[in-house]
Amino acid sequence: MEIPVIENIYDYNKEHAQENRRIFRDNKIMTVNLLSSPGAGKTSLIAETIKNLKDKKIGVIEGDISSTHDAEKLKEYTEEIVQINTGGTCHLNASMIYNALKKIDLKAIDILFIENVGNLICPVGFDLGEDHKILISSVSEGDDKPVKYPKGFAVSSLILLNKIDLYDYFEFNHQFFVGSVKKLNPLAEIIELSCKNHKGINLWLDWLDKKRISG
Amino acid sequence: MEIPVIENIYDYNKEHAQENRRIFRDNKIMTVNLLSSPGAGKTSLIAETIKNLKDKKIGVIEGDISSTHDAEKLKEYTEEIVQINTGGTCHLNASMIYNALKKIDLKAIDILFIENVGNLICPVGFDLGEDHKILISSVSEGDDKPVKYPKGFAVSSLILLNKIDLYDYFEFNHQFFVGSVKKLNPLAEIIELSCKNHKGINLWLDWLDKKRISG
Repeated sequence: MEIPVIENIYDYNKEHAQENRRIFRDNKIMTVNLLSSPGAGKTSLIAETIKNLKDKKIGVIEGDISSTHDAEKLKEYTEEIVQINTGGTCHLNASMIYNALKKIDLKAIDILFIENVGNLICPVGFDLGEDHKILISSVSEGDDKPVKYPKGFAVSSLILLNKIDLYDYFEFNHQFFVGSVKKLNPLAEIIELSCKNHKGINLWLDWLDKKRISG
Repeated sequence: MEIPVIENIYDYNKEHAQENRRIFRDNKIMTVNLLSSPGAGKTSLIAETIKNLKDKKIGVIEGDISSTHDAEKLKEYTEEIVQINTGGTCHLNASMIYNALKKIDLKAIDILFIENVGNLICPVGFDLGEDHKILISSVSEGDDKPVKYPKGFAVSSLILLNKIDLYDYFEFNHQFFVGSVKKLNPLAEIIELSCKNHKGINLWLDWLDKKRISG
Protein backbone atom coordinates (compact mmCIF):
# COMPACT_ATOMS: atom_id res chain seq x y z
CA MET A 1 0.00 0.00 0.00
CA GLU A 2 1.32 3.37 -0.93
CA ILE A 3 0.81 6.06 1.66
CA PRO A 4 -0.62 9.20 0.09
CA VAL A 5 1.61 12.22 0.52
CA ILE A 6 0.29 15.74 0.38
CA GLU A 7 3.37 17.39 -0.98
CA ASN A 8 2.97 20.83 0.48
CA ILE A 9 0.40 23.26 1.76
CA TYR A 10 -0.07 24.72 -1.70
CA ASP A 11 -1.09 21.32 -3.13
CA TYR A 12 -3.45 20.76 -0.22
CA ASN A 13 -4.91 24.22 -0.83
CA LYS A 14 -5.27 23.54 -4.55
CA GLU A 15 -7.72 20.70 -3.93
CA HIS A 16 -10.02 22.93 -1.92
CA ALA A 17 -9.64 25.70 -4.50
CA GLN A 18 -10.88 23.35 -7.24
CA GLU A 19 -13.91 22.53 -5.14
CA ASN A 20 -14.63 26.25 -4.63
CA ARG A 21 -14.21 26.87 -8.34
CA ARG A 22 -16.82 24.21 -9.08
CA ILE A 23 -19.24 25.84 -6.62
CA PHE A 24 -18.72 29.27 -8.18
CA ARG A 25 -19.24 27.88 -11.68
CA ASP A 26 -22.38 25.93 -10.72
CA ASN A 27 -23.86 29.07 -9.18
CA LYS A 28 -22.72 31.41 -11.97
CA ILE A 29 -20.79 33.59 -9.54
CA MET A 30 -17.79 35.66 -10.63
CA THR A 31 -15.30 35.74 -7.78
CA VAL A 32 -12.64 38.35 -7.13
CA ASN A 33 -9.81 37.93 -4.61
CA LEU A 34 -8.68 41.39 -3.45
CA LEU A 35 -5.08 41.74 -2.32
CA SER A 36 -3.39 44.80 -0.83
CA SER A 37 -1.32 46.30 1.97
CA PRO A 38 -3.22 47.30 5.11
CA GLY A 39 -5.17 50.49 4.47
CA ALA A 40 -4.90 50.59 0.66
CA GLY A 41 -8.68 50.78 0.29
CA LYS A 42 -10.13 47.29 -0.20
CA THR A 43 -13.19 47.91 1.98
CA SER A 44 -13.88 51.35 0.48
CA LEU A 45 -13.65 49.89 -3.02
CA ILE A 46 -16.18 47.16 -2.18
CA ALA A 47 -18.58 49.72 -0.65
CA GLU A 48 -18.22 52.00 -3.68
CA THR A 49 -18.80 49.07 -6.05
CA ILE A 50 -21.96 47.84 -4.34
CA LYS A 51 -23.38 51.39 -4.23
CA ASN A 52 -22.82 51.85 -7.97
CA LEU A 53 -23.61 48.38 -9.32
CA LYS A 54 -27.34 48.35 -8.64
CA ASP A 55 -28.20 45.63 -11.17
CA LYS A 56 -25.83 43.04 -9.68
CA LYS A 57 -26.07 41.32 -6.32
CA ILE A 58 -22.81 41.24 -4.48
CA GLY A 59 -21.61 38.99 -1.66
CA VAL A 60 -18.54 39.60 0.48
CA ILE A 61 -16.16 37.42 2.45
CA GLU A 62 -14.12 39.58 4.82
CA GLY A 63 -10.72 38.25 5.90
CA ASP A 64 -9.04 39.73 8.96
CA ILE A 65 -6.66 38.66 11.70
CA SER A 66 -9.30 39.73 14.22
CA SER A 67 -12.32 42.06 14.62
CA THR A 68 -15.44 42.52 12.49
CA HIS A 69 -14.52 46.15 11.82
CA ASP A 70 -14.72 46.05 8.01
CA ALA A 71 -17.72 43.70 7.89
CA GLU A 72 -19.63 46.13 10.13
CA LYS A 73 -18.95 48.90 7.61
CA LEU A 74 -20.19 46.80 4.69
CA LYS A 75 -23.28 45.21 6.17
CA GLU A 76 -25.37 48.25 5.32
CA TYR A 77 -24.67 47.52 1.64
CA THR A 78 -25.22 43.75 1.44
CA GLU A 79 -26.85 41.01 3.46
CA GLU A 80 -24.61 38.30 2.03
CA ILE A 81 -21.50 38.94 4.09
CA VAL A 82 -19.33 36.61 6.17
CA GLN A 83 -16.37 37.49 8.35
CA ILE A 84 -13.39 35.13 8.61
CA ASN A 85 -11.07 35.85 11.53
CA THR A 86 -7.81 34.02 10.86
CA GLY A 87 -6.65 34.43 14.48
CA GLY A 88 -3.12 35.35 13.41
CA THR A 89 -2.72 33.63 10.06
CA CYS A 90 -1.45 36.11 7.49
CA HIS A 91 -3.64 35.02 4.55
CA LEU A 92 -6.88 33.30 3.62
CA ASN A 93 -6.80 29.76 2.22
CA ALA A 94 -9.26 27.82 0.09
CA SER A 95 -10.65 25.72 2.93
CA MET A 96 -11.53 28.86 4.94
CA ILE A 97 -13.45 30.07 1.87
CA TYR A 98 -15.13 26.68 1.43
CA ASN A 99 -16.47 26.88 4.98
CA ALA A 100 -17.52 30.52 4.61
CA LEU A 101 -19.52 29.70 1.46
CA LYS A 102 -21.88 27.59 3.60
CA LYS A 103 -23.05 30.83 5.24
CA ILE A 104 -23.83 32.63 1.98
CA ASP A 105 -26.96 32.26 -0.14
CA LEU A 106 -25.10 31.48 -3.35
CA LYS A 107 -28.24 31.66 -5.48
CA ALA A 108 -28.71 35.28 -4.34
CA ILE A 109 -25.43 36.72 -5.64
CA ASP A 110 -23.76 37.45 -8.99
CA ILE A 111 -20.34 38.60 -7.81
CA LEU A 112 -18.38 37.56 -4.72
CA PHE A 113 -15.64 39.81 -3.35
CA ILE A 114 -13.12 38.12 -1.10
CA GLU A 115 -11.27 40.79 0.89
CA ASN A 116 -8.03 39.08 1.81
CA VAL A 117 -5.95 39.89 4.92
CA GLY A 118 -4.04 43.14 4.39
CA ASN A 119 -0.65 41.81 3.37
CA LEU A 120 1.23 42.12 0.07
CA ILE A 121 3.15 38.88 0.51
CA CYS A 122 1.47 35.84 2.10
CA PRO A 123 -1.93 35.78 0.35
CA VAL A 124 -0.33 35.76 -3.10
CA GLY A 125 0.45 32.02 -3.28
CA PHE A 126 -3.01 30.81 -2.21
CA ASP A 127 -5.53 30.04 -4.93
CA LEU A 128 -9.00 30.44 -3.41
CA GLY A 129 -10.80 29.25 -6.53
CA GLU A 130 -11.34 32.84 -7.65
CA ASP A 131 -11.70 34.04 -11.24
CA HIS A 132 -9.41 37.00 -10.70
CA LYS A 133 -6.80 38.20 -8.28
CA ILE A 134 -6.88 42.00 -8.15
CA LEU A 135 -4.16 43.95 -6.40
CA ILE A 136 -4.94 47.39 -4.98
CA SER A 137 -1.95 49.67 -4.50
CA SER A 138 -2.34 53.25 -3.31
CA VAL A 139 -0.53 56.49 -4.12
CA SER A 140 0.24 57.12 -0.44
CA GLU A 141 2.21 53.84 -0.23
CA GLY A 142 4.67 55.09 -2.85
CA ASP A 143 5.60 54.20 -6.42
CA ASP A 144 8.06 51.45 -5.45
CA LYS A 145 5.60 48.75 -4.34
CA PRO A 146 5.85 46.67 -7.58
CA VAL A 147 9.66 46.61 -7.25
CA LYS A 148 9.57 45.67 -3.58
CA TYR A 149 6.65 43.20 -3.57
CA PRO A 150 6.77 41.81 -7.11
CA LYS A 151 4.89 38.53 -6.85
CA GLY A 152 1.44 39.97 -6.13
CA PHE A 153 1.74 42.31 -9.09
CA ALA A 154 2.92 39.44 -11.28
CA VAL A 155 -0.06 37.15 -10.61
CA SER A 156 -2.93 39.67 -10.70
CA SER A 157 -5.30 40.18 -13.65
CA LEU A 158 -5.80 43.81 -12.75
CA ILE A 159 -3.88 46.41 -10.75
CA LEU A 160 -6.00 49.14 -9.20
CA LEU A 161 -4.02 52.24 -8.28
CA ASN A 162 -6.16 53.88 -5.60
CA LYS A 163 -6.07 57.31 -3.87
CA ILE A 164 -5.11 59.16 -7.06
CA ASP A 165 -6.65 62.28 -5.48
CA LEU A 166 -3.28 62.40 -3.64
CA TYR A 167 -1.10 62.62 -6.80
CA ASP A 168 -0.29 66.28 -6.18
CA TYR A 169 0.56 65.66 -2.56
CA PHE A 170 3.06 62.82 -2.96
CA GLU A 171 6.13 62.57 -5.16
CA PHE A 172 4.68 59.59 -6.97
CA ASN A 173 6.51 58.69 -10.18
CA HIS A 174 3.64 57.39 -12.27
CA GLN A 175 5.83 56.28 -15.16
CA PHE A 176 8.09 54.30 -12.81
CA PHE A 177 5.09 52.57 -11.21
CA VAL A 178 3.47 51.61 -14.52
CA GLY A 179 6.81 50.56 -16.05
CA SER A 180 7.57 48.33 -13.04
CA VAL A 181 4.15 46.66 -13.25
CA LYS A 182 4.49 46.08 -17.01
CA LYS A 183 7.91 44.46 -16.54
CA LEU A 184 6.46 41.99 -14.03
CA ASN A 185 3.18 41.41 -15.82
CA PRO A 186 2.93 42.65 -19.42
CA LEU A 187 -0.71 41.55 -19.71
CA ALA A 188 -1.97 43.23 -16.53
CA GLU A 189 -4.45 46.04 -16.91
CA ILE A 190 -3.97 49.08 -14.67
CA ILE A 191 -6.90 51.26 -13.63
CA GLU A 192 -6.30 54.45 -11.68
CA LEU A 193 -9.06 55.57 -9.37
CA SER A 194 -10.07 57.34 -6.21
CA CYS A 195 -12.78 56.11 -3.85
CA LYS A 196 -12.76 59.65 -2.42
CA ASN A 197 -13.44 61.83 -5.48
CA HIS A 198 -14.82 58.90 -7.56
CA LYS A 199 -12.49 59.43 -10.52
CA GLY A 200 -11.90 56.21 -12.43
CA ILE A 201 -14.71 54.30 -10.67
CA ASN A 202 -16.56 53.93 -13.98
CA LEU A 203 -13.50 52.34 -15.60
CA TRP A 204 -13.47 49.81 -12.78
CA LEU A 205 -17.21 49.08 -13.08
CA ASP A 206 -16.77 48.66 -16.87
CA TRP A 207 -13.94 46.19 -16.26
CA LEU A 208 -16.15 44.13 -13.91
CA ASP A 209 -18.98 44.18 -16.43
CA LYS A 210 -16.73 43.13 -19.29
CA LYS A 211 -15.34 40.22 -17.29
CA ARG A 212 -18.84 39.13 -16.22
CA ILE A 213 -19.92 38.93 -19.84
CA SER A 214 -16.78 37.27 -21.18
CA GLY A 215 -16.81 34.80 -18.25
CA MET B 1 20.89 8.91 23.54
CA GLU B 2 18.16 11.48 23.47
CA ILE B 3 17.59 13.15 20.15
CA PRO B 4 17.42 16.93 20.54
CA VAL B 5 14.15 18.37 19.36
CA ILE B 6 13.82 21.96 18.29
CA GLU B 7 10.24 22.54 19.31
CA ASN B 8 9.29 25.15 16.82
CA ILE B 9 10.70 27.86 14.62
CA TYR B 10 10.26 30.45 17.36
CA ASP B 11 12.49 28.47 19.76
CA TYR B 12 15.08 28.01 17.05
CA ASN B 13 14.91 31.73 16.35
CA LYS B 14 15.26 32.56 20.06
CA GLU B 15 18.70 30.94 20.24
CA HIS B 16 20.02 33.11 17.42
CA ALA B 17 18.34 36.16 18.93
CA GLN B 18 20.24 35.61 22.22
CA GLU B 19 23.48 35.43 20.29
CA ASN B 20 22.65 38.70 18.49
CA ARG B 21 21.76 40.33 21.80
CA ARG B 22 25.16 39.39 23.20
CA ILE B 23 26.86 40.91 20.15
CA PHE B 24 24.86 44.14 20.49
CA ARG B 25 25.67 44.38 24.21
CA ASP B 26 29.38 43.68 23.74
CA ASN B 27 29.56 46.39 21.11
CA LYS B 28 27.34 48.88 23.02
CA ILE B 29 24.88 49.11 20.16
CA MET B 30 21.24 50.01 20.70
CA THR B 31 19.14 48.08 18.18
CA VAL B 32 15.71 49.00 16.91
CA ASN B 33 13.49 46.63 14.89
CA LEU B 34 11.14 48.72 12.72
CA LEU B 35 7.79 47.16 11.81
CA SER B 36 5.11 48.55 9.51
CA SER B 37 2.82 48.04 6.54
CA PRO B 38 4.38 48.59 3.11
CA GLY B 39 4.81 52.31 2.50
CA ALA B 40 4.25 53.58 6.05
CA GLY B 41 7.58 55.41 6.06
CA LYS B 42 10.29 53.21 7.58
CA THR B 43 12.99 54.24 5.09
CA SER B 44 12.09 57.94 5.28
CA LEU B 45 12.23 57.79 9.08
CA ILE B 46 15.70 56.23 9.03
CA ALA B 47 16.95 58.86 6.54
CA GLU B 48 15.47 61.67 8.64
CA THR B 49 17.01 60.22 11.81
CA ILE B 50 20.51 59.89 10.38
CA LYS B 51 20.37 63.45 8.97
CA ASN B 52 19.40 64.87 12.36
CA LEU B 53 21.44 62.73 14.76
CA LYS B 54 24.89 63.99 13.85
CA ASP B 55 26.61 62.88 17.08
CA LYS B 56 25.62 59.22 16.73
CA LYS B 57 26.77 56.72 14.13
CA ILE B 58 23.98 54.69 12.67
CA GLY B 59 24.01 51.36 10.88
CA VAL B 60 21.14 49.90 8.89
CA ILE B 61 20.01 46.39 7.97
CA GLU B 62 17.43 46.59 5.18
CA GLY B 63 14.97 43.71 4.87
CA ASP B 64 13.06 43.25 1.63
CA ILE B 65 11.54 40.45 -0.40
CA SER B 66 13.67 41.58 -3.32
CA SER B 67 15.52 44.64 -4.70
CA THR B 68 18.01 47.03 -3.11
CA HIS B 69 15.64 49.96 -3.64
CA ASP B 70 15.60 51.25 -0.06
CA ALA B 71 19.26 50.51 0.63
CA GLU B 72 20.18 52.61 -2.44
CA LYS B 73 18.24 55.53 -0.97
CA LEU B 74 20.01 55.23 2.39
CA LYS B 75 23.60 54.64 1.31
CA GLU B 76 24.19 58.36 0.92
CA TYR B 77 23.57 58.70 4.67
CA THR B 78 25.60 55.80 6.11
CA GLU B 79 28.36 53.45 5.01
CA GLU B 80 27.29 50.73 7.42
CA ILE B 81 24.36 49.31 5.51
CA VAL B 82 23.50 45.74 4.52
CA GLN B 83 20.61 44.54 2.39
CA ILE B 84 18.87 41.25 3.19
CA ASN B 85 16.68 39.91 0.38
CA THR B 86 14.42 37.26 1.86
CA GLY B 87 13.46 35.91 -1.57
CA GLY B 88 9.80 35.62 -0.62
CA THR B 89 9.88 35.12 3.15
CA CYS B 90 7.51 37.58 4.81
CA HIS B 91 9.74 38.56 7.76
CA LEU B 92 13.34 38.72 8.96
CA ASN B 93 14.59 36.16 11.47
CA ALA B 94 17.46 36.23 13.94
CA SER B 95 19.81 34.07 11.89
CA MET B 96 19.47 36.39 8.87
CA ILE B 97 20.48 39.26 11.20
CA TYR B 98 23.39 37.22 12.63
CA ASN B 99 24.78 36.73 9.14
CA ALA B 100 24.22 40.36 8.17
CA LEU B 101 26.14 41.55 11.25
CA LYS B 102 29.32 40.02 9.80
CA LYS B 103 29.18 42.67 7.06
CA ILE B 104 28.90 45.63 9.44
CA ASP B 105 31.74 47.31 11.33
CA LEU B 106 30.12 46.97 14.74
CA LYS B 107 32.75 49.15 16.44
CA ALA B 108 31.79 52.00 14.12
CA ILE B 109 28.12 52.32 15.10
CA ASP B 110 26.05 53.40 18.12
CA ILE B 111 22.56 52.59 16.87
CA LEU B 112 21.43 49.85 14.49
CA PHE B 113 18.13 50.17 12.65
CA ILE B 114 16.68 46.96 11.29
CA GLU B 115 14.07 47.78 8.67
CA ASN B 116 11.87 44.70 8.62
CA VAL B 117 9.88 43.50 5.60
CA GLY B 118 6.76 45.67 5.14
CA ASN B 119 4.15 43.49 6.80
CA LEU B 120 2.07 44.09 9.93
CA ILE B 121 1.68 40.41 10.76
CA CYS B 122 4.55 37.98 10.17
CA PRO B 123 7.56 39.91 11.56
CA VAL B 124 5.85 40.42 14.93
CA GLY B 125 6.67 36.99 16.43
CA PHE B 126 10.37 37.01 15.55
CA ASP B 127 12.78 38.30 18.18
CA LEU B 128 15.90 39.54 16.35
CA GLY B 129 17.79 40.31 19.57
CA GLU B 130 16.73 43.97 19.37
CA ASP B 131 16.30 46.35 22.29
CA HIS B 132 13.04 47.74 20.95
CA LYS B 133 10.36 46.88 18.47
CA ILE B 134 8.89 50.09 17.06
CA LEU B 135 5.76 50.05 14.96
CA ILE B 136 5.16 52.79 12.40
CA SER B 137 1.55 53.36 11.42
CA SER B 138 0.53 56.15 9.06
CA VAL B 139 -2.49 58.43 8.86
CA SER B 140 -3.17 57.40 5.26
CA GLU B 141 -3.63 53.75 6.32
CA GLY B 142 -6.57 54.70 8.53
CA ASP B 143 -7.32 54.77 12.26
CA ASP B 144 -8.35 51.10 12.45
CA LYS B 145 -4.95 49.45 12.14
CA PRO B 146 -4.56 48.66 15.90
CA VAL B 147 -7.98 46.96 15.91
CA LYS B 148 -7.25 44.96 12.77
CA TYR B 149 -3.57 44.05 13.38
CA PRO B 150 -3.40 44.02 17.19
CA LYS B 151 -0.31 41.91 17.92
CA GLY B 152 2.30 44.29 16.49
CA PHE B 153 0.84 47.16 18.49
CA ALA B 154 0.79 44.99 21.63
CA VAL B 155 4.49 44.04 21.54
CA SER B 156 6.06 47.37 20.54
CA SER B 157 7.79 49.78 22.95
CA LEU B 158 6.82 52.75 20.84
CA ILE B 159 4.18 53.49 18.23
CA LEU B 160 5.10 56.15 15.69
CA LEU B 161 2.12 57.65 13.94
CA ASN B 162 3.58 59.02 10.71
CA LYS B 163 2.22 61.29 7.92
CA ILE B 164 0.37 63.56 10.37
CA ASP B 165 0.62 66.29 7.70
CA LEU B 166 -2.37 64.39 6.20
CA TYR B 167 -4.66 64.80 9.24
CA ASP B 168 -6.85 67.36 7.48
CA TYR B 169 -7.11 65.23 4.38
CA PHE B 170 -8.27 61.95 5.89
CA GLU B 171 -11.11 61.24 8.28
CA PHE B 172 -8.71 59.91 10.88
CA ASN B 173 -10.25 59.49 14.33
CA HIS B 174 -7.26 60.26 16.52
CA GLN B 175 -9.02 59.39 19.78
CA PHE B 176 -10.10 55.99 18.42
CA PHE B 177 -6.55 55.20 17.25
CA VAL B 178 -4.92 56.18 20.57
CA GLY B 179 -7.64 54.45 22.60
CA SER B 180 -7.21 51.23 20.60
CA VAL B 181 -3.43 51.27 21.09
CA LYS B 182 -3.78 51.92 24.84
CA LYS B 183 -6.20 49.00 25.22
CA LEU B 184 -3.68 46.64 23.59
CA ASN B 185 -0.59 48.09 25.21
CA PRO B 186 -1.13 50.47 28.13
CA LEU B 187 2.61 51.14 28.50
CA ALA B 188 3.32 51.98 24.86
CA GLU B 189 4.38 55.50 24.09
CA ILE B 190 2.88 57.12 21.00
CA ILE B 191 4.73 59.81 19.07
CA GLU B 192 3.03 61.62 16.20
CA LEU B 193 5.27 62.91 13.46
CA SER B 194 5.70 63.74 9.81
CA CYS B 195 8.83 63.01 7.82
CA LYS B 196 7.48 65.51 5.29
CA ASN B 197 6.97 68.68 7.37
CA HIS B 198 9.27 67.46 10.20
CA LYS B 199 6.71 67.97 12.98
CA GLY B 200 7.36 65.66 15.91
CA ILE B 201 10.81 64.56 14.68
CA ASN B 202 12.41 66.12 17.77
CA LEU B 203 10.17 64.09 20.06
CA TRP B 204 11.37 60.95 18.29
CA LEU B 205 15.04 61.97 18.53
CA ASP B 206 14.55 62.72 22.24
CA TRP B 207 13.02 59.26 22.73
CA LEU B 208 16.02 57.63 21.05
CA ASP B 209 18.43 59.68 23.17
CA LYS B 210 16.60 58.83 26.40
CA LYS B 211 16.65 55.12 25.59
CA ARG B 212 20.35 55.27 24.68
CA ILE B 213 21.16 56.78 28.07
CA SER B 214 18.89 54.54 30.14
CA GLY B 215 20.13 51.46 28.22
